[in-house]
Amino acid sequence: MQLEATTVDIGTTRPLVLLNTVDAAELGAHPIDRVRIQHAGETTTGIVKRTDELVPPGTVGVTEPLHHVRGTVDVTLAGAPHSVRYVRKKLDDIELEADELEAIVRDIHESRLSDVELSAYVSAVYANGLSLEETKHLTEAMTDVGEQLQWETPVVADKHSIGGVAGNCVTPIIVSIVAAAGLTMPKTSSRAVTSPAGTADVVEVFCDVEFTIAEIESIVEETNGCLVWGGGVDLSPVDDEIIRAENPLSIDPPGQLIASVLSKKRSAGSTHVVIDIPYGEGVKVESLVAARELADDVKRVGDHLEVDVTCAITHGTDPIGRGVGPVLEARDVLEVLEGDGPESLRLKSVRLAEMLLTHCGVDASATEILESGRALERFRRIVAAQGGEPDIESTDLEPGAESTTVRAERTGIATRIDNRQLCELARRAGAPLDSRAGLVIHRTVTDAVESGDRLYTIYAETPTKLAEAERLADRLEPVRVRSKADALVERR
Amino acid sequence: MQLEATTVDIGTTRPLVLLNTVDAAELGAHPIDRVRIQHAGETTTGIVKRTDELVPPGTVGVTEPLHHVRGTVDVTLAGAPHSVRYVRKKLDDIELEADELEAIVRDIHESRLSDVELSAYVSAVYANGLSLEETKHLTEAMTDVGEQLQWETPVVADKHSIGGVAGNCVTPIIVSIVAAAGLTMPKTSSRAVTSPAGTADVVEVFCDVEFTIAEIESIVEETNGCLVWGGGVDLSPVDDEIIRAENPLSIDPPGQLIASVLSKKRSAGSTHVVIDIPYGEGVKVESLVAARELADDVKRVGDHLEVDVTCAITHGTDPIGRGVGPVLEARDVLEVLEGDGPESLRLKSVRLAEMLLTHCGVDASATEILESGRALERFRRIVAAQGGEPDIESTDLEPGAESTTVRAERTGIATRIDNRQLCELARRAGAPLDSRAGLVIHRTVTDAVESGDRLYTIYAETPTKLAEAERLADRLEPVRVRSKADALVERR
Repeated sequence: MQLEATTVDIGTTRPLVLLNTVDAAELGAHPIDRVRIQHAGETTTGIVKRTDELVPPGTVGVTEPLHHVRGTVDVTLAGAPHSVRYVRKKLDDIELEADELEAIVRDIHESRLSDVELSAYVSAVYANGLSLEETKHLTEAMTDVGEQLQWETPVVADKHSIGGVAGNCVTPIIVSIVAAAGLTMPKTSSRAVTSPAGTADVVEVFCDVEFTIAEIESIVEETNGCLVWGGGVDLSPVDDEIIRAENPLSIDPPGQLIASVLSKKRSAGSTHVVIDIPYGEGVKVESLVAARELADDVKRVGDHLEVDVTCAITHGTDPIGRGVGPVLEARDVLEVLEGDGPESLRLKSVRLAEMLLTHCGVDASATEILESGRALERFRRIVAAQGGEPDIESTDLEPGAESTTVRAERTGIATRIDNRQLCELARRAGAPLDSRAGLVIHRTVTDAVESGDRLYTIYAETPTKLAEAERLADRLEPVRVRSKADALVERR
Repeated sequence: MQLEATTVDIGTTRPLVLLNTVDAAELGAHPIDRVRIQHAGETTTGIVKRTDELVPPGTVGVTEPLHHVRGTVDVTLAGAPHSVRYVRKKLDDIELEADELEAIVRDIHESRLSDVELSAYVSAVYANGLSLEETKHLTEAMTDVGEQLQWETPVVADKHSIGGVAGNCVTPIIVSIVAAAGLTMPKTSSRAVTSPAGTADVVEVFCDVEFTIAEIESIVEETNGCLVWGGGVDLSPVDDEIIRAENPLSIDPPGQLIASVLSKKRSAGSTHVVIDIPYGEGVKVESLVAARELADDVKRVGDHLEVDVTCAITHGTDPIGRGVGPVLEARDVLEVLEGDGPESLRLKSVRLAEMLLTHCGVDASATEILESGRALERFRRIVAAQGGEPDIESTDLEPGAESTTVRAERTGIATRIDNRQLCELARRAGAPLDSRAGLVIHRTVTDAVESGDRLYTIYAETPTKLAEAERLADRLEPVRVRSKADALVERR
């Protein structure tokens, strides 16, 4: 069918083709069908949307990725990409070959799968699992479609944490220690997706985090390390697309998880990696047994891909550090580097750094590097290389001016600190966009608490946001205090 | 967050909420997240789409189902509907309870699930299957969200065919026979989705097919039967939504299939149903074993729902009748009713009608009703009641003026007639929109064929469409002729 092409913006970055209902019926094209558009000797494919109003009959509307399509074009019905057959094959619980996984990854990368097809892929992998072979092939395919960093040193250290734990900002401390010990550690991190602060958001309090590959290489050459946002470089880009389908379903199939993590690490050129697997109630990995299984599988896939992996299984239910939110977590980080700071953050950072040093065959003490101030000095060099103010001190980092402190209503022991509720509160207060918004937690689990003691303080940049967070705090109980006498919590 | 509501048309009937990227980030709302919109004491929920251009900051755009939302509204982040948990539960291969299936069906019905979630539901049901209990509950839930027809007669006959077979237009003949025998048979049918003609498209050649429930009741009261389009009444409406996710994946899980069919029949008030299960290569049900299993399962679920089901397993690979396309199939139907017509269509219609009569406990001969002209007379009464011209004769039904006949290139036996290719050709020629477009097949399987004999004729309403169909015909071979000497098909 000959149609005139016109560009439309319907707020999507997917390659959609809008047909008037009349033309769509004539073509026999239903929503989510695909059409082939031929113009000037080129052929493009897009997913059909039908509309009565947006485009008149005789016209085909194309969204942004297809904006190069112009003039009179020939539109014909196209089949689904081959990879949809492989998705169906996985739904049938048949093991996929390397080239079939490659086809799926390529089609996801080029936005050729509809949401329905992408979700079926994720669902199939979740319901039927991936074999070790499949996971290896998937990792390779995911690595291949993105950019790859290359380093001249034989050992490149890296660290990854699976699943979000609030205020778990160990990365800047570990990178500073490991880089100070003379190892190369080009660390990419993410921004907050559903949490109040990703590592990249915290680092951004100190300096820039968005760099090109060439800039990253020069920062690492100068300082041995970097603390950059992974989204600024195109390492294993398919991961984000897959997460788009996993998140609404709250699923994260282990095989897919391993492929996502290891393809990122491989793309970053890492050779020796410590993977932190926090486990516990309400965390991605719920039991110690599951954490161990995941650790074994990650190591097996790593072996095949020549990435030397070791895993740290940690507690995932309690917060690490006192602050939640970009500036408040940044303050914790800097305090630890200055030789003080929350014990939980210092201990976890040192333990993981030590593991990574040993794993890389380096005979150095993480504790000594931290206590001697060499880690702080290295952190300042990285901050300077990334365009920040190197002489910043933790006392310069001030939270939002608006605050409320929530106090204990009874005497007892702090028995549970609920990470999810803390994150929700910090977000409501404005984090991560308002970088100075968030929480400070004054108690850790097992602390004795007197009625009237401070439990946590909410910080916000504006009174409105603070009020919103306070309203939410009234309905939540992120820090639970119990005493033996609490047989009855309240009577009403 | 307080925003001004504005209506937008982005060519969708789904309840979408467009937020400017700035507001979305502030709210922490990602694409496919949901937001709650409060206005004038009412609360509505929609799925988030982020846009830089379509709506400015401070404004929220709502699509058609939310067009009642106006003025200043309060927008907050909302969780996914509960039923997403049950989808996840099914992905985990845990049996769902009645209320959980009800929640899923209700949320699908109210467009509360995103494509990702809907596809995960279909994928989960496909990968992990539905138990008999689950299928029963699902059928009940699907029935309950739609309208329901009610009849005073204790026996209401019905018929359903699973999976499309080209030119398989037995329904008008069966309804005419059964209604003539004195039974109530209020038949709803579908229009073509991917085929060149649905039963409703064929009946529309004779008369209207779109009626309200009250009109259907009066047509049935007058004639015992009706031949209407199911889409005009809201019987088990969730089926269409589910098919939207099944089609792109080419999956149709048996449990879901049974629930879809039986919920339609239950909604129509049917008590005695014959279900035609065509099987074979390239058909929905591929083997005799699978057809038998499906038949047993359908009957078991029917028993529980007090729908008396009997199944006819038939051959699904060969076309039934000579014509493909609305007018050409209508001509076959009328010829059979007039006492002539293609043998395959007459035989299959009579056999199924006989099964249905026996199943309803009626002692009457379908052959006798057809041969005596009583079926034709009843058909004319239904056509008249549905606003058509009752005196129409088969010779009045003329195909499109443009035609080409494809002839045999060798002498031998017609060994295979490929339904899919015939359907594709008929659609290319313009069916079903051009009602007089389509094909006539001159040979059936096992016929002896001389080189130069007519195999099939393509009809179109315009020379352009005919040329397009001819181009496609050059690449296909819908009627295959073989002889023993054909060791080598061709040398090139």
